Order: sequence, then C-alpha cells, then structure tokens
Amino acid sequence: MKRLIYVLFFVLLAGTSYAQRAKYVFYFIGDGMGVNQVNGTEMYLAEQEGRIGVKPLLFTTFPAGTVATTFSATNSVTDSSAAGTALATGAKTYNGAIGMDDDKNALQTVAEKAKQAGRKVGVTTSVSVDHATPAAFYAHQPNRSMYYEIALDLPKAGFDFYAGGGFLKPATTADKKDAPSIFPIIEEAGYTIARGLDEYKAKAADAGKMVLIQKEGAVPSCLPYAIDRKEGDLTLPEITESAISFLTKGNNKGFFLMVEGGKIDWACHGNDPATVFEEVIDLDNAVKVAYEFYKKHPKETLIVVTADHETGGMSLGTGRYELRLKALTNQEQSQDLLSKAITDLRKDSDKASWEEVKALLADKMGFWEELPLTWEQEKMLRDEYETSFVKNKVVFEESLYAKTEPLAAAARKVMSQIAMVGWTGSGHTAGYVPVFAIGAGSDLFVGKMDNTEIPKRIAKAAGYK
Amino acid sequence: MKRLIYVLFFVLLAGTSYAQRAKYVFYFIGDGMGVNQVNGTEMYLAEQEGRIGVKPLLFTTFPAGTVATTFSATNSVTDSSAAGTALATGAKTYNGAIGMDDDKNALQTVAEKAKQAGRKVGVTTSVSVDHATPAAFYAHQPNRSMYYEIALDLPKAGFDFYAGGGFLKPATTADKKDAPSIFPIIEEAGYTIARGLDEYKAKAADAGKMVLIQKEGAVPSCLPYAIDRKEGDLTLPEITESAISFLTKGNNKGFFLMVEGGKIDWACHGNDPATVFEEVIDLDNAVKVAYEFYKKHPKETLIVVTADHETGGMSLGTGRYELRLKALTNQEQSQDLLSKAITDLRKDSDKASWEEVKALLADKMGFWEELPLTWEQEKMLRDEYETSFVKNKVVFEESLYAKTEPLAAAARKVMSQIAMVGWTGSGHTAGYVPVFAIGAGSDLFVGKMDNTEIPKRIAKAAGYK
Repeated sequence: MKRLIYVLFFVLLAGTSYAQRAKYVFYFIGDGMGVNQVNGTEMYLAEQEGRIGVKPLLFTTFPAGTVATTFSATNSVTDSSAAGTALATGAKTYNGAIGMDDDKNALQTVAEKAKQAGRKVGVTTSVSVDHATPAAFYAHQPNRSMYYEIALDLPKAGFDFYAGGGFLKPATTADKKDAPSIFPIIEEAGYTIARGLDEYKAKAADAGKMVLIQKEGAVPSCLPYAIDRKEGDLTLPEITESAISFLTKGNNKGFFLMVEGGKIDWACHGNDPATVFEEVIDLDNAVKVAYEFYKKHPKETLIVVTADHETGGMSLGTGRYELRLKALTNQEQSQDLLSKAITDLRKDSDKASWEEVKALLADKMGFWEELPLTWEQEKMLRDEYETSFVKNKVVFEESLYAKTEPLAAAARKVMSQIAMVGWTGSGHTAGYVPVFAIGAGSDLFVGKMDNTEIPKRIAKAAGYK
Repeated sequence: MKRLIYVLFFVLLAGTSYAQRAKYVFYFIGDGMGVNQVNGTEMYLAEQEGRIGVKPLLFTTFPAGTVATTFSATNSVTDSSAAGTALATGAKTYNGAIGMDDDKNALQTVAEKAKQAGRKVGVTTSVSVDHATPAAFYAHQPNRSMYYEIALDLPKAGFDFYAGGGFLKPATTADKKDAPSIFPIIEEAGYTIARGLDEYKAKAADAGKMVLIQKEGAVPSCLPYAIDRKEGDLTLPEITESAISFLTKGNNKGFFLMVEGGKIDWACHGNDPATVFEEVIDLDNAVKVAYEFYKKHPKETLIVVTADHETGGMSLGTGRYELRLKALTNQEQSQDLLSKAITDLRKDSDKASWEEVKALLADKMGFWEELPLTWEQEKMLRDEYETSFVKNKVVFEESLYAKTEPLAAAARKVMSQIAMVGWTGSGHTAGYVPVFAIGAGSDLFVGKMDNTEIPKRIAKAAGYK
C-alpha cells in the first residue's frame, strides 16, 4: 500500500509538473535594483501613508522570494553587460561582453532558446534598445559600446517584438565611421517600426514583427524618468501591455518576454533616492500588467522579477535609528531636470541672486519650507552657489549617465541626508539582488542562487531545450 | 480514481508533515548580520582562494533562503531589543523593549512556548547573557539597559541552559542601587554555574540546569572576537556543542536552542570589515555543530539562521568595479586590540616616533609592506599621529560598544578603503536580513517575510501551541 501511495504520488507530481509548464514567461530585470532599492521603495510607500514599515509592491508578495549573487567572471563587481549576459545565457563572462564568453564565442540566450522552442519572443526596456541588458538577450558582441553592431544583431536574432527609447548609434559604427542607417535594415528584415504608442496601435494588426520606440524627436537614450513623466510619454507599463498584445495575436504559441526597468540604475548612479523609488514603482506597475495576464493563465504563466546588480551602495539608515523617506515626496523631479533648471536659471538671469536660487530649490525640492535645513546643509548649497553662480566656476559632476550642475549635486546630497538614505559611491556594488517569482515553475526559485541559475531555471520551467 | 489520488496525496502530505515535526530546533541569530555581511564573508573567503566569486558558508547552502524586514513598532530602524523581541515573540514593539509590547505587557516567547510544550530550552550568545537579543527570549523588562532585572528573569523563565560571556550588572539595579548578587539567586533556583568549558565538563553530568559563562577574570561583556581569539578562550561553537550535550542528556524530550553571534554587530558598529567577516565565519562554525546534529536527526531537526538587523550600512563596492577583500587578511586583530596597542605605545614610549607608529601599523594591518597606501591614506594616518601623539590631543572615537584611539579609527578607514568596503554610518540600518533554513519545517521559510513571521513559523514547524 505504501508503495502504491508513492507511485501515485510521483504520478501526480509528474502530472502537476507537466500541467504547470510555463507557456508564457515574463522576465523582469530592474537594472541596479539591489535589495535595498526594493525595501526602500516599500518603506517610502509606507511613510506616504504616515506609518513606519512597508507597503508591499506587487512583486515582493510573490510566493518565491530569494537573493542572487552577481559577480562577473573578471570582476567582483559586475557591469550591466556581464550581468545581462549571465541573466540571459547562464554563463559568467567578462565585464563589457554582450552575449559572449571569455573567449568571445557567442553564448545561446534563453530568449533564443524560447524562439527555438517555437515561442514568440519580446525584448523590451526603458532605455535604448541597444543598451547592455536588452542587447545581452539578442546580440553577440565583444563590447557593450558597439551600439551599431548590436543593433545589426537585432534582425539577425529575428525576435518578434523589441521596444525601448530608441537607438544610440543608428548610423555610426564602433570605430566611428558613417554606416547605413539601421532603420531600413531592420525594416527590410520584416520589421515594422512604430514611433510612439499611437503608431504602434495603428500598425500592430498588420505587422509581422515589431520595433516600438519613442515618437520622433524624443531623446533615444531612454524613456523619461517616472518622476519626470509628462502626458503622452511612452511608459514601461505601456510597453509591457503592447508586448503582450503583440506576442499573443494570431496563432498563440506562448511567449518569452524580457522587460527591463533600466533607469533605476541611472538614478542610483546619480544617488537620487526619490527618482530611484519612483522608478521601482514604475517597474512594479509593469509587473502588474503581467500579473493581470497571469491571472487569466495562472497555470501556464511564470513571472520572474530580478536585477542585474546593485548600484550606489544604497543603505536605509545613516547612523540614527530612523528614516525620513516621506521627505522625498517634496522632490518634484529628477536630479537631471533640477540640473537643467539650474543651468536655465544661470542663462536666463545674469548673476541670479541667492534668493532666486533658494526659491528654485524650495520649489523643486521643498527645502526650507517643507524641509528645514541645518546650517551645514544650507552652507553646502550656498557654497556651491557662490562657486558656480558668483565666481562662475561651474564644474559639472559626471556620473555614468548624467552631467550634473554642482548645485544640483549638492541639493541631491542634502536630500539624501534629510531622508537618511546612505550611498557608498556612484558605481555598482556586489550586493545581492532580489529574485521574486510566481506561477508555473516558480517553486524552482527557492534558496540563494547565483544569477547564472536564473535563465537555466526559467528554461527548465518553460521546457526550453 | 482522480479523487482517490487526491485523497491519498493529502494523506501522504499530512503524514509527511507529521513525520517532519521539528523535535529539535536551532535558532541562530547573527546580530547586525545584514545580507551584505553574509555575501561579503563569502566573497572574502573566495578571494583567499585567489578567485573572484563566493565560497559558500554552510548556512547559505540551506535549501530555504530568503530575506526579512526588521523595522520596529516605533522606528524604521530597529534596535536589538525590539528586533530581538520580534524574533522571540512574533510581535513588533518599541525600540528598547525586552519581551514586552507597546503597553509594557509581557509577550510570550517561542522559547517559553517550547518549554510549555515539554522541550528542553537553551538561550546562548557570544555577548553577555543579559544582553538584548538573548534577554528577549527569557526576560520581560521595559528597557534593555535593566541588566540586573533582566538577569533576575533568567531563573524565573526556568530554561535549562544559558550561556554567554557573563553578566553586566550582577549586583546593581537599573536605578544604580547595590543589590544581592544574581549568582547565588540563580544557584538557589537550581542552576549550576560553570565558569569556563572545563568546569562545564566537570559539572554537567550532575547539573539539573546550567549557566555557562567565561572563566573567572574574563571580561563579562562578551567572548573575544574570533579574530582576537587565544587558546583557551570560550567560543560560540563550543557553547553550541555544550548546549546540545546538555539539552539531550537524560530523558530526551527534544529542545529549542537559540544561539546568538552577538559581536558581528559590534564589529559593524566599528566599521571593521575583517573582524566582521571572521565573526560571521565563527557563527557559521557554530551552525556546523548544529548541522552535525541535524545529520543524525534530519527528519526531526530544524535549523534557522537569521539576523536582527543590519549594522553600518555595509556595501561591497565604493565606486570602482572591483573589491579587494583579500587585503583584509593582513589585519591581525580587531580594531579594539589595535586601539589598545596604540594606547600602550603612547604609554610605553614618551613621544613615540612616526617610525615606531608606522612599524606598529605595518605589523598589525600590513600597511606599506603588503598593502601600499596612497598619499591621501598615509596623510590621514600621519595627521592623526601628529594630533594624538605629537600634540597629545587624543579624542577617542565612541561607537556603541567601543572607544577607539583616533589613529586606530583612521587605520580602520584606510583598510575599508583598500578593501573597497563602504559604510554609511556606525548605527543600524533598515536593510533586509537573510533567512536560511534546513530540515523539518524549513519549507515554511519561503518568500520575503517580516521578522515577526520567523518565530511563528518555528512554532508551527515544531508544533508549539
């Protein structure tokens, strides 16, 4: 009898496992989204409700939740291309590599495996389509900065749906030579290029394959930060929704969809906590779109949410036993836009007065009015004003994705001090990244793992060979 | 038939669950051990093997691995007593509370539940027995600094085995009045007090209940740091081994054993990474002792490893895409002992020369010889030498558990810079703590949770009411 029970148990288990194969896979990657970026966002949301604790994002409530290590083959601290390659292929490689191993051989990606298995495939991001993380899923190039060559790999991969801000070098090779624009090349390969959501909607029905980017005139490097968003801007949740509709139209063979929240990283490089948390919320909003799909196909859908690495060494506490994250709600825009506003003020007003500058900082950051400053904090701002406005010595602070007015950089430091958010640098760190999963095969995402395990487990859950 | 399968499946599940009830529970708490403290230790161990990556500790290989939030009822950033109370009772309380809720009502602890269920109970630590974390399991006092009153609660709880460095205030009440020594009070309640391991071994067989502390003459506040350990010092693995032997002798009713690695926190308050990582390794060595027991009783043993909070805002990276944790192996002792050595040098040698001080730092930290310094780093040390040795202006840096020579503090900063370990303060942070589990009921420790969930799930796994 006991033997019979065991036999029945395994039959049942095998049946369950088969029934739960993930026909639909969502793979969300928050670039730079370490564990504190997630925890911090939830504590920021709770403080907005006037309480201490966490207000859960959707994805942190998923039944599987753990952490992953991120080091690359060559560096304790990975860059986005080696981490993207690890998350796409399951192999460690050198910092800088896109879908290639240490010996510069192409590595097969989980997206390519999905395609081989007959699934529709989408690769999407809030930054440029040729950026490291999305590129690691469809391209194979020795260096992440070979944007033109990466873009040429896009039609070669032959995936069904790509989306993002645009393309960084549509007509210039890595060795800085003029080259034929990638747009007609992509179109000739059978893709429809939609510029903006309206064009996507108009063209989707008749399109075989699709590249969705922002409207003509938008900065191609990325979508605007969530905190800076204006009516009509393309968003990551919209991209996710468009991807689902495109990948399920017609003969529904199932799909694999990668969605990158690429600017969490950028805001962390700039040590700009309000902008970081709003980006994480925006990624969660994209996850919510996937979750609505999951609810309709719970036994056939797997959603995995993870990150490529931590950025900034963000910590939730700077010595005192409290946080003041609600203060961040006084910040109206990203540091980048504050920097632009400061540059504009200098241009518009010959020798803008300290009172004018104070008014700008009060308006955009809530300083003095909602957020009283210490003398040291006021002095930090005033010193930068004296240097950059009165003495006209303007040395922009350069981080990986932004050049920032020194006064905006000082304002950002003051805001982190007030909120009690700490930073240990403007680069990446080796901190754990979170891994959350729900749906078919999510039970595979249990226990601390290395980032290279993630695509392998996705492939297993989805039955890709 | 399908119905039959389901019935059999649930019978089997119920049977499995019953068979796996945790008769033996190990609850390890690394005080101050945030996720980066664990990840950092594993990367430090890998670098010692001359490679990039992680060399796993035992406990991170446990099948269940996730993270927990730690905020208290009153503070986004908890202290050890509110966190200890959460981990002991499953309830949030105010910073400072020991086993009491917001209204100062006593809360039942998981250790008390274990005792009520007929299990033997042990509460052990590497710091003083009356310190916040162990106290939260057996005492009920409105403030963690009421060490005498906490000690009086020890015989009241009536647990079987206590161990730690000693007692901080054995004869002085919270309001600073002389009082009867707690030692005879504890003995009269039926406890044998063993001072050191030899005494424990001599007395254990005949003892009904046991309090194991360090030998006469040792500093009662804690065991020495693992990095500073000398032959004959009591260690956390020895305490764990003694606890197991004591709690299983005679009529074996099962046990609940809490083991705190209390000085990870202290080393983090001091931003002293080599000492931190060696403490985490020492906690893992204590876990290894439990694991040997688990291997003999795999179906009846649960091991949970977690932490109360993160300390220091430690990050693994300070801007460059690398770490140099191997440099830390040149540090021969904790910052505390370096500080003492510097004080001794000042006392021994009237106006010790810079060459003498350099020789000390070269010897103890590997500076200049194994670890070349930048000019800024040398200047930081030399400036402190000039101030504290030449000008005799010695302002000790005070953190929660140490007063540090300014030159030792500077040396520590230089070492973190070299290793590229970042810190955002000397206090706690709200960062996630890790949760790892193996054995009976370990499947309950899946998915991100709040720290209050941990004792509830232990009670469930062990069948405590």
